[in-house]
Amino acid sequence: MVIKLEKIKALLYENGSAVIRNADIYIKDDRIFKVDTTMQAQDAPKADKIIDGKDRLAIPGLINAHTHAYMTMFRNIADDVPFTTWLFDTIEPLEDAMTPEESYFGTLLANIEMIRTGTTSYVDMYICPDVNAKAAKESGLRACFTRGIVGSEYNDEGGMRRVNEALHDLDTWCDGDLRFAMLGPHAPYSCSGDFLKHVVEIAKERGLGLNMHVAEGQTEVNMCREKYNMTPVEYVDSMGVFDVHSIAAHCVYLEDRDFDILKAKNVNVAINPFSNAKLANGFSPVPKMLEKGLNICIGTDGAASNNTLNMFREMTFEAMIHKGLLKEATAVSAENVLKFATLGGAAALGRANELGEIREGYKADIAVIDLKTPQLQPNNNLISALIYSANGSEVDTVLVNGKILMEHKVLTTIDEERVYFEMNRIGERYMEIIRNKKSSK
Amino acid sequence: MVIKLEKIKALLYENGSAVIRNADIYIKDDRIFKVDTTMQAQDAPKADKIIDGKDRLAIPGLINAHTHAYMTMFRNIADDVPFTTWLFDTIEPLEDAMTPEESYFGTLLANIEMIRTGTTSYVDMYICPDVNAKAAKESGLRACFTRGIVGSEYNDEGGMRRVNEALHDLDTWCDGDLRFAMLGPHAPYSCSGDFLKHVVEIAKERGLGLNMHVAEGQTEVNMCREKYNMTPVEYVDSMGVFDVHSIAAHCVYLEDRDFDILKAKNVNVAINPFSNAKLANGFSPVPKMLEKGLNICIGTDGAASNNTLNMFREMTFEAMIHKGLLKEATAVSAENVLKFATLGGAAALGRANELGEIREGYKADIAVIDLKTPQLQPNNNLISALIYSANGSEVDTVLVNGKILMEHKVLTTIDEERVYFEMNRIGERYMEIIRNKKSSK
Repeated sequence: MVIKLEKIKALLYENGSAVIRNADIYIKDDRIFKVDTTMQAQDAPKADKIIDGKDRLAIPGLINAHTHAYMTMFRNIADDVPFTTWLFDTIEPLEDAMTPEESYFGTLLANIEMIRTGTTSYVDMYICPDVNAKAAKESGLRACFTRGIVGSEYNDEGGMRRVNEALHDLDTWCDGDLRFAMLGPHAPYSCSGDFLKHVVEIAKERGLGLNMHVAEGQTEVNMCREKYNMTPVEYVDSMGVFDVHSIAAHCVYLEDRDFDILKAKNVNVAINPFSNAKLANGFSPVPKMLEKGLNICIGTDGAASNNTLNMFREMTFEAMIHKGLLKEATAVSAENVLKFATLGGAAALGRANELGEIREGYKADIAVIDLKTPQLQPNNNLISALIYSANGSEVDTVLVNGKILMEHKVLTTIDEERVYFEMNRIGERYMEIIRNKKSSK
Repeated sequence: MVIKLEKIKALLYENGSAVIRNADIYIKDDRIFKVDTTMQAQDAPKADKIIDGKDRLAIPGLINAHTHAYMTMFRNIADDVPFTTWLFDTIEPLEDAMTPEESYFGTLLANIEMIRTGTTSYVDMYICPDVNAKAAKESGLRACFTRGIVGSEYNDEGGMRRVNEALHDLDTWCDGDLRFAMLGPHAPYSCSGDFLKHVVEIAKERGLGLNMHVAEGQTEVNMCREKYNMTPVEYVDSMGVFDVHSIAAHCVYLEDRDFDILKAKNVNVAINPFSNAKLANGFSPVPKMLEKGLNICIGTDGAASNNTLNMFREMTFEAMIHKGLLKEATAVSAENVLKFATLGGAAALGRANELGEIREGYKADIAVIDLKTPQLQPNNNLISALIYSANGSEVDTVLVNGKILMEHKVLTTIDEERVYFEMNRIGERYMEIIRNKKSSK
């Protein structure tokens, strides 16, 4: 099967810089076969399907490096409240009430939203085995499963059950390509040092990476300081987490030596700008991360704290915030955040050699943007336009692994009507739970 | 002509609070005739046209309280550069090159974008007489014209020409309803004290309000301090600007006594959160403005510094930023920013008694949101959803003055194809000007 994106504008990386080129892009099966900027190559294959590139821009599919997909079911359910109210009065009771079926539909809704806004890969930290993987498989998105794992001692029973659920999903659902896995020790405040060490051992045995929340909030920083006299990064590092391929999500609170550790251990830092602001944790020190040469990627976090899984909004927000904070218009550029969401994400997935770029031989994960929208007119500078003008609704067509998941705004893998119906049924059940909780107080 | 929004969810203000109610909304000619929350009123008029409210939410049309509509032609043309490069190397030379016809198309493009993202009224500071007003009239949007006025002395010739152009537009294009006008003295750094006093006299004579940039940047603050030993707010106030109905755009740099002046003089403060961050000016002190009880409204500023005219993005950004800055999740709420963009804007227009609300007797300026989009599912808390999940692309239908300007995403007043064609022609001309300027350096 050969798909041709014909006479399209394409966002390419050349010598480390983002550039826009006119090109014919040939996709053969799951990979990009040819990027023909001459648009008259003699050795081009015959296309089985042609997607017209007029007024369209092909970009590498965006990589959401940190989310909790199922949490769409908690969207807009507790906003403008302090963190403790959010977590203890709403999110935790609802997670306790959540059924696997609900988690499945929540993940499908997340997948709809991701496809519609140009995300092609995501790193998912979730709770229920099987159902999140099932949803991802049905959606056709590329997913890295990291079952969230908490544990209080070396052989903690609950912790080991969670590890085994992670390994179950790995063995049952993963193919090492569209679906793969890491272990997901939850956070410094929810994993004891002994337990963390044990998880690292298992990761090493199985050749798995690790995905962990690190330095997200002040309470966590205080706890690490009091309990271990370390920063969260130091603590996590001392348990060996950064000795394997690792993603450290959030990294809002970093001290000078933390940057050095993250750099030395080649940690992938997944910033979550919108969630960190919304939950009043603050802003990740991205300009300094850039200066130190860290590998930065971007996550949306879950919809309970965002409240959308739209990577365009994350990119925009991140490019803006430091300009205002530092009073420096060049602090974080459009190109910087585009790279975080593509190249940075690919590195975080451990697959920089085949994801995150429109490049011959790479996986065919591509989002096609409709340039004929008022906010992108005139088509002056498309790299700028992607970050400062686009909102994600311009995504017209999405391919993952060479398969079309959305064509001209129509999804090919998920029945949206059904998911919306089920999600509203679930949403009503949760609102009822919250009302009952309030009235019983 | 009676239009009925049938069995729709509606954002209403009741006793000062935003609430969502199910309702039949009847629009008779230019006004909201009836908001029937019983949905079985006996005295409801017969509808000539019915808009199905299923899975839809009606909100008051958003009011963009500060923009430069024509500047869409400069969109994405100079980003991630310092302010001086932006202004002197790009925007000013292009403004010098701009023709009235280009300004007309730029404004039409702005109008398309505003309609598509639910804005129904805007305050426009522009340069070219006639053409901006002509575009606004054709679009059907409600517009307040404020021709930008600079001047160096009491009877400054250029300044008086600009005043006369403002009065020309007022006399030629305005009907006091869909199109009205204020005077637009540009900024403390571009208007001498004498000239400002003169403009205030003319405003008083003609019964006009004033719209002015105030306290936007550090350079302006320094200039006012050095030249007058005053803050920008004090300086502007000392020239009498705040003695008439006035909009002070930006207000990023405010000292304690400035808040008191703005409150005492009932000034309408038009914040521009995205532009202020992007041009590295910083963030308006909105939590303190709220505490002091100022009337706050929101503008997008021009697309040269934004780079879109989407009020949803402004609302979202404003609700987020102070949560992160103050590490306080309740700093600025979803309801706060919704009010800024509706009630606050209506007050800034001097028409709080007939704009900014879905209320019987008020002008029928309404945006209808499609709730069947993944980011708004499940439909849990629609006030939260509007600010934390929506991106503006959910706007489905827009009415201004009882006239439908967009129905199910199709514009009724503007030929989009033509505007896009012309804007790309203009965009190419400008890129050429910039290239020539660079190569001649």
